[in-house]
Order: sequence, then structure tokens, then C-alpha cells
Amino acid sequence: MSPRTPAQNAELALLLEVAGTPKPGNVDRHRDFEDLRFEHFLAGAVGARPGLAAAAAGDPVGDAFERAVAGMAEQEGGNTQFGALLLLVPLVAATDGAGPPTRAAVSRVCSETTVADAAAFYRAFDHVDVFVGDPPPDAPELDVRRGSDAVPDVEAREETLEAIMERSAPGDGVAREWVRGFDRTFETADRLLAADGHILDRTADAFLELLSEEPDTLVATQHGDAVARDVSEQAADLLDASRADVEAFADDLVERGVNPGTTADVTAAGLYVALQGGLSV
Amino acid sequence: MSPRTPAQNAELALLLEVAGTPKPGNVDRHRDFEDLRFEHFLAGAVGARPGLAAAAAGDPVGDAFERAVAGMAEQEGGNTQFGALLLLVPLVAATDGAGPPTRAAVSRVCSETTVADAAAFYRAFDHVDVFVGDPPPDAPELDVRRGSDAVPDVEAREETLEAIMERSAPGDGVAREWVRGFDRTFETADRLLAADGHILDRTADAFLELLSEEPDTLVATQHGDAVARDVSEQAADLLDASRADVEAFADDLVERGVNPGTTADVTAAGLYVALQGGLSV
Repeated sequence: MSPRTPAQNAELALLLEVAGTPKPGNVDRHRDFEDLRFEHFLAGAVGARPGLAAAAAGDPVGDAFERAVAGMAEQEGGNTQFGALLLLVPLVAATDGAGPPTRAAVSRVCSETTVADAAAFYRAFDHVDVFVGDPPPDAPELDVRRGSDAVPDVEAREETLEAIMERSAPGDGVAREWVRGFDRTFETADRLLAADGHILDRTADAFLELLSEEPDTLVATQHGDAVARDVSEQAADLLDASRADVEAFADDLVERGVNPGTTADVTAAGLYVALQGGLSV
Repeated sequence: MSPRTPAQNAELALLLEVAGTPKPGNVDRHRDFEDLRFEHFLAGAVGARPGLAAAAAGDPVGDAFERAVAGMAEQEGGNTQFGALLLLVPLVAATDGAGPPTRAAVSRVCSETTVADAAAFYRAFDHVDVFVGDPPPDAPELDVRRGSDAVPDVEAREETLEAIMERSAPGDGVAREWVRGFDRTFETADRLLAADGHILDRTADAFLELLSEEPDTLVATQHGDAVARDVSEQAADLLDASRADVEAFADDLVERGVNPGTTADVTAAGLYVALQGGLSV
């Protein structure tokens, strides 16, 4: 039982995620990128709330997501939480009452998405520049960077939002959660609930564990698979290291502009499920 | 013009206030007290939002305040933003449209408060322990620490919330804002808008300037007038000092448990007015 509504917990998850430190390669309580700073994430979380509330109220997943992204984008840092919202919106939509969503419920929400949800997903890209890889060579017209211009093509192909996530899953860890039943999200929630210590320390630990387990797909897209694998191997080596060593790794990644943002997205999603499951703050 | 609603900006003001650093003697982006930590302020801000939205929707000031405090209190740190909400609720209630509230409008909101608002103010103390001074010797039954138990006495005396603020003003810098037309709040907003640099740096500068100008009443209540005066004199000496010197002062106050929390409350109120006035994040 949580004292907060699902939309409040989703917003709080975004805030706790960015505050968790050290979160190597990401903006955190103690680190900024030059043009993407802590305050942008605070404003992004506040701005996303009406879209999250729309998801809780039963609005279509695509519309709620587009609204959340539009609100998130009302700050000067650019994309702060696009991927996290793509996880949080179906999780909030699948939440029934004060407890956590079930795996079955969120899978059902995903499988019930429509072509209209897919169109709204494309429109969300009009609100903010998102770093994404190239579209599949056989379907260049489905490039998400076209935003709403691609909607007629999306509609002509009659693809649902879930189908788009399936197509994107190989190169995108957020889409992979949709396809794999939010496996890593629920596992992260279990870890957060089972851990000891202050919540921002638990958040940092959960992030590092996720990073050690799977190469971050944003890093892979921006810097190549080898760098992404290397970063995850370094994270694995640091799981039992001193806090100072993790801090040094965090500084190094920020300095190199290596940003495991997808891992942060999954961390936020796990925080939401854990908060709904009674993780106290 | 702000892209956010007044309730969103009020919540964002709470978040920016706690993130602003260094904010000597207060929890900030880089400092915690042992039992009152950054994450408690994040949860407090998220929890306060429905009460802030009620104020924006025209609910009575007392009810909106009690609701904001009840939501704020849903975290384990105790009192995080009681004083800030006592400023933000009338400011949000006085906000008409997308711009900032006027001084005249907020004074009118305060002067129109009723005995029912006063009763709700007392009930708000049921939700959270607030550090306050002793009640006036001639009216011990009005001790706010009695919470809702004092409501029959408040009603019998037919005091409005504004009258209570007038009575509290000598020893409480938040009540003083009610009495003085939110002078320091509006001045802080002007400074924030006129300043250069990142918003969290501007926040820290605005806090230090406020602290240098008037002894903090929470410090005076907890540690005596002499300490409060001394802290403000130290702040004044640091206005043109290096950031490192201010950081050292911040560490020292936290270590001594000297917490200029009222100054932080006014900083949050100034941030709200500035955000409504177009301060961009």
C-alpha cells in the first residue's frame, strides 16, 4: 500500500531516479552534463505528471504517453525522460488500485495497444529530439524521427504500438522491456524492496547491477557495441568495489559523454513498481 | 508566460529550492541531515501537489493548505515544507492565469481568510510535527501544537487565519510575509529573474542574500536570537566570498544543526513567483 496515487509514484520514481548517485554516465544528484542538468529532470518529472495521470485514468496508452512527453519537454535541457515514460505509462495504466501492477496486467496493456497508440507514439517525437538509431532498411518511412509526418505510413501499415516495440527490441532496451514482459523492471523492483539502506543508495546499486547485466542500448547506439559491452564489464567489476571507485567510474563516463540512459529508464520503472509495492521514502 | 500550471510551478519551486546548493544549514543537492534527507523533500513536493492544485482551483485557503500538508507529510522525514506551503498556498490562490500573482491579489487572499481557514490551519498540525515557539502567554489554548484539539478555542475567539498570522509575525518569518504583503517573496522573485547563471546557482545566491538581510526565525526559535543574528552576519560577510567559503559555511551549519529553514521557505515562494513570471528552467 502506498500513500500516493500511481501518477504521484510515477513522478516520484523519476525524481528518485535522477537523484540516485553515483549513477555512472548519467545526470545524478552530484553530476550534470553541460547542457542537460539536474534541474531539467526535475522540471521534466513535474511536467510529465498530467500525462501519467491520464494513463492512470484509463486514457489510451499512446495519448497518455504523448501528453507525458509534451509536458516533460517543457524545459530547456531537451530529452530527459522519454524512455522512462515509455515504460511508466503502460505500468501506470496496468496499475489497479494501491498495489503494484502485475506482470500479466502490463503485458495485457501492451498487447491491447492499437494503431492509434502507434500514431500517438510517433507524434510524441514532435515534442523533443530523441537520440535513436536508424530505421529498419526495409521500412525507412517508419523512421521515428519523422514524428507526425510518419503517421500516414504507420496507419497504412496498420502496426500497433506493441508491434513497433517488437520491431525495435533488438536495438532498444526500452522496447525490449515491452517484449519481455518488463522482466528487468520487476526484477529491479524486487531488488529495491529487498535491499537495505537509504533509497538513493539502493537506486544507485540497482542501476549498477542492471548496467552490469546487459550492455546499455543507448551507449551501443551512440558509441558502438564494443563500448557498450566494455562499460557493462566495468560495471560488473565494480559491483563489490568501494563507493569511491564507482564515483570515479561515474566521473569518467560523464567526461567521455558515455550515457547509459536506457539503464536509467529501467531503474525509474523499477522504482515505480517498488513504490507501488510499499517501498517507503 | 509559463508552460506549466500554477500548481506545477509551485511543486517545481519546492524541488528547485531543495536542489539549490550551497544553501547553508539546509538540506540541499549535496547535503542531508541525518534523519531529514533530500528524498524526503522530493516526496514532500510530490505529495503536496493535490493541495496546491486545490488552491489553484479556488478551494478555501485553509482547506487547500491542510491538504497540501497532509500530502507533504506522507514520507518518513517529518516536516519538510510546512512553512513553504504556508506561503505557496495563498500565492497560488492569488494567481490568475499564466502570469505571476500580484502583490495586491495575494494581500486580498490573505485578508479574505476566515475562521474556518484558521481551523484548517490548526488541523494541519495533526499531520506533522512542526518546530514552533511557545504560544502567547495570554492565550495558551491557541498553541498550534494542540492541532485540531485547539479548533473549538480558535472558533470561540473568532480569529481568522490572517489574524493568527498577525499574532505570530514577531517570531515567525513566514507569518511576517503574510503581514508585510509578501515583500521578501516578491523581491526574491525579482532577483531570481534579474540574475544570470543556472537556476540552482541563482537559488543559492537568493537564499544567501535573504539570510544576510534578516535573522532566520527558525534559527532564533531553536538556538536563540544571538545565534540567528550571528548566522546572518556571517552570511552577509560571505555575499562576495568564494563558492568554497560558502560551502564551508554550509557544512558548518549542518554539522551544528543550525537550520535557517524559514529563509528556505521564502526562497521557495520567490521561486514560484519567478517561475510564473517566466523564469525558465
